[in-house]
Amino acid sequence: MNILFDERLDGPLPAVDAATTFERLRAALPGMTLLHRDEDRRPFECDGLSAYRVMPMLVALPETVAQVVTLLRTCRELRVPVVTRGAGTGLSGGALPLEQGVLLVMSRFDRILELDPDARIARVQPGVRNLAISEAAAAYGLYYAPDPSSQIACSIGGNVAENAGGVHCLKYGLTVHNVLAVEAITLEGERLALGSAALDAPGYDLLALFNGSEGMLGIITEVTVKLLPRPESAKVILASFDDVEKAGRAVGDIIAAGIIPGGLEMMDNLAIRAAEDFIHAGYPVEAQAILLCELDGVEADVADECQRVREVLAQAGATDIVLARDDAERARFWAGRKNAFPAVGRLAPDYYCMDGTIPRRELPRVLKGIAALSAESGLAVANVFHAGDGNMHPLILFDANRPGELERAERVGARILELCVEVGGSITGEHGVGREKINQMCTQFRPDEITVFHAVKAAFDPDRMLNPGKNIPTLARCAEYGAMHVHNNRLPHPELPRF
Amino acid sequence: MNILFDERLDGPLPAVDAATTFERLRAALPGMTLLHRDEDRRPFECDGLSAYRVMPMLVALPETVAQVVTLLRTCRELRVPVVTRGAGTGLSGGALPLEQGVLLVMSRFDRILELDPDARIARVQPGVRNLAISEAAAAYGLYYAPDPSSQIACSIGGNVAENAGGVHCLKYGLTVHNVLAVEAITLEGERLALGSAALDAPGYDLLALFNGSEGMLGIITEVTVKLLPRPESAKVILASFDDVEKAGRAVGDIIAAGIIPGGLEMMDNLAIRAAEDFIHAGYPVEAQAILLCELDGVEADVADECQRVREVLAQAGATDIVLARDDAERARFWAGRKNAFPAVGRLAPDYYCMDGTIPRRELPRVLKGIAALSAESGLAVANVFHAGDGNMHPLILFDANRPGELERAERVGARILELCVEVGGSITGEHGVGREKINQMCTQFRPDEITVFHAVKAAFDPDRMLNPGKNIPTLARCAEYGAMHVHNNRLPHPELPRF
Repeated sequence: MNILFDERLDGPLPAVDAATTFERLRAALPGMTLLHRDEDRRPFECDGLSAYRVMPMLVALPETVAQVVTLLRTCRELRVPVVTRGAGTGLSGGALPLEQGVLLVMSRFDRILELDPDARIARVQPGVRNLAISEAAAAYGLYYAPDPSSQIACSIGGNVAENAGGVHCLKYGLTVHNVLAVEAITLEGERLALGSAALDAPGYDLLALFNGSEGMLGIITEVTVKLLPRPESAKVILASFDDVEKAGRAVGDIIAAGIIPGGLEMMDNLAIRAAEDFIHAGYPVEAQAILLCELDGVEADVADECQRVREVLAQAGATDIVLARDDAERARFWAGRKNAFPAVGRLAPDYYCMDGTIPRRELPRVLKGIAALSAESGLAVANVFHAGDGNMHPLILFDANRPGELERAERVGARILELCVEVGGSITGEHGVGREKINQMCTQFRPDEITVFHAVKAAFDPDRMLNPGKNIPTLARCAEYGAMHVHNNRLPHPELPRF
Repeated sequence: MNILFDERLDGPLPAVDAATTFERLRAALPGMTLLHRDEDRRPFECDGLSAYRVMPMLVALPETVAQVVTLLRTCRELRVPVVTRGAGTGLSGGALPLEQGVLLVMSRFDRILELDPDARIARVQPGVRNLAISEAAAAYGLYYAPDPSSQIACSIGGNVAENAGGVHCLKYGLTVHNVLAVEAITLEGERLALGSAALDAPGYDLLALFNGSEGMLGIITEVTVKLLPRPESAKVILASFDDVEKAGRAVGDIIAAGIIPGGLEMMDNLAIRAAEDFIHAGYPVEAQAILLCELDGVEADVADECQRVREVLAQAGATDIVLARDDAERARFWAGRKNAFPAVGRLAPDYYCMDGTIPRRELPRVLKGIAALSAESGLAVANVFHAGDGNMHPLILFDANRPGELERAERVGARILELCVEVGGSITGEHGVGREKINQMCTQFRPDEITVFHAVKAAFDPDRMLNPGKNIPTLARCAEYGAMHVHNNRLPHPELPRF
């Protein structure tokens, strides 16, 4: 079922007049950049989920909180929906524009307002790049832990909006675990101060509610993050396996042994070969799977854990276990992993990156299921993922120029996500729902639960002016999508195995 | 200003008929224990904040989720408010009953439903005691980290409702950081499954929203918690100081050195002497302050950190630094701390325990402020607290039999909380808001923010049937309380210093 906005399935949008909106915003905000020409708006027609594109009606680039307040008040008065965008690197289409809406781009809020090494916090504007925080903190031996692979470009406001993750979130948590406070502007133009530099805050936990809320509750104008001391030492172990499921079981064994690695990543043979071909990382191209296990902390601790991890891996049936001998080799091992997506991208004209999360113990079962789906559909699937926290990134390879292949890839992707839900997992680990997974939300949640989500949304935005159609499906959409499951007592994709 | 429910300040409650409610509940739920006689209801008239007592109209003790659903539907139909209670150990009056309401006691939901040592999770009913989880997990070398000092009695449902903390939450987090999933029943009797055993969950973060929601959004019927491996080694250092502020600064120095202790507690001279007198812990009674610093982890790591902490403490001006020589001495050091409240309780007929949280760097300033308030008011204040995470527990000593002393103690307490807010902290660290801090919420949040809290509440319970009057004050109450601040341009308690 199509994920593009459909008034029949996603609810009606107000009728909007582009010229009036432009004039009113121009008059109210003479100093603000407001893009209306085709060539100026074009770069904003998609985010990182570039298979889907919509030209925004207008693009606003405010520079002050006062401008954001005025913009929101004006749009609310005109009943023009507002979609907020950070750096545009999101992978689930959370910042996909609306033809009849204003795209509010926060990239000019790019100042670090405060960096307190004693309190270990940084207070920054939402457009500050993820990596820029760690760069500024490096002088004090500190860094910001969540590290999405887009960290050179993605901004912290978007990280909060999508509750971004990264290689190290097994040990150090997602964005929600590393954000202490957020300032946000409501649709009415009111300022909310959520959380605090202190450990706990009274009242309902609206700070957590804003993490992952995809611009649907308010506009984030300031973020206070935790900084951590750089670990004294870090080592990487590369383990090879002759069987994917064995590697999956080894992941659980490491955690069960009481070790929380800084990163614990897995790649299957297709991904290994693609990465090796592209980066020459030194990966064993004959292995059916590899695990990369990074251990960090104080020197003595790391040495001890390396020894214990080697023992667990040997017990789990690893065919080869290599400790990176120096920082150069360690960087090379990671370079293969970090470039795995573009490397796999060289194998086929197009690929579709999934983001399901499952309980670790289900890794072997789900990997088997993905292999069956791949065989049935005739589409190759490479597996590259954050194994330690059960966050899978199957990459489905296809050729959009061949009729029907995009749709087939979407169906395989949908089935993979549903499989994640079946084993007790979830349809997203770090990319968010956006528009991409709007249908799978109907698999994840029952109508009662979706109704509660809408009620919470209405507490902030009863008229659905902020990013309408994202994150939470209407019951109408679920009824249509769910009908595919239930009617005729058949599965949605009868051509695919049900496991 | 009084914290007891006042319809003028807290909004009207529906008129309720006790006899009809009893008959209808009895008819709908013949198998459920329903207490209506005075002597049966008496034990439930307060929780751990025993200075405030209200006799509940009826007390229900269901044993099944189906009974909870029927009870909620019946009460909703009759428009009878419902206050939910766990073990009744809460310190902020979150489970203070209503004269015209049903008290729903969840203590019979006391089964551990699942304990999976590989996944390191326990799925339990809400009435399971906090310590019972760790006891059941001990066979696998695991435990549940948050450890309120009431952990022998308090139940996990109440821990979630109040987002409980404990000595170890500096390193291991509050309840919200250790709960993976919650099942709850809404007022309409619908089941919500929030969170999952996987790392992330899509949709708004309602799981976090339920942590600390004090029974106002729904009834928790199941909780899935994280289990952690017991640390291999734990050591305790006791450091003495001749000055409270120096001890406060040493706390920040330890954290700034890149060490996160398992526990980092502070006691001032009054608390030291009371504890020593009561427990004979081996504390230095001449010290103006002591720090207890526990380091846990693998052996080599702990030894290394002990050395570094000793250096930091010496640098910070500690007059004596002692490492507990064995587990017996370590246990004795902790016994003094853990019994500090009852020990201080022996110094005066009554004491009032506060729970403000501040950024660590403000510890010296706030300690100075508390000393000034104590001097001005003539009431002794002992300080015993989780220094590492800035969670203060000043104990205000008074004699309720002396006219005006309770009120004076309340005013000192209110000023201490306001001081916490002034320095960027919050009015609660781990005890919650309940009724106790209902007025201070007006200091912590602006009317815009309180309006948003009410909107979120209304998304779940528009008619205020669940625990009305707790957690979030009405704007009417804030106007009255705030007026004390603003009118005549005077402070609320002009007799107390403003610092």
